[in-house]
Amino acid sequence: MQEVNYKQQAYDQLHQDADKILQLIKVQMDNLTMPQCPLYEEVLDTQMFGLSREVDFAVKVGLIDREVGKVLLSSLEKELSKLHDAFTNV
Amino acid sequence: MQEVNYKQQAYDQLHQDADKILQLIKVQMDNLTMPQCPLYEEVLDTQMFGLSREVDFAVKVGLIDREVGKVLLSSLEKELSKLHDAFTNV
Repeated sequence: MQEVNYKQQAYDQLHQDADKILQLIKVQMDNLTMPQCPLYEEVLDTQMFGLSREVDFAVKVGLIDREVGKVLLSSLEKELSKLHDAFTNV
Repeated sequence: MQEVNYKQQAYDQLHQDADKILQLIKVQMDNLTMPQCPLYEEVLDTQMFGLSREVDFAVKVGLIDREVGKVLLSSLEKELSKLHDAFTNV
């Protein structure tokens, strides 16, 4: 039972953290910080690095499957890229 | 039982990752990359940020106590600082 809880909590936490990155980038865009800005790129790279470390950790501890982690990161990247395109095409 | 395993594995993994940072910095020093080098600072900052994200994640999922996480990070910082001093005082 407890095992399932840790796995579920790890999964939920990773998704929350991914959402947080998405929200952060949305706020940056709403405030008209251009995606071409080096600071934007740096913030995004740093956040993605942090999340990928969390995913690696969860995989190594056995809380999520490596494949699930990959899908989480690539989905976030796709969403960010869509957001980026929507912003630059306005 | 499984609960203890996840907690133990999380604890061990965090310590392994902290050790990895220490080793990385030792290798840099052995290869005479000066601690004043901006790249050294950047590598160290990035690695510490990654580890602190792992710790935060483990705390939020309930795998380690916040206090244990803080001690892990501050111990690593102390060790790195000792290493830094030893290197710069040669």
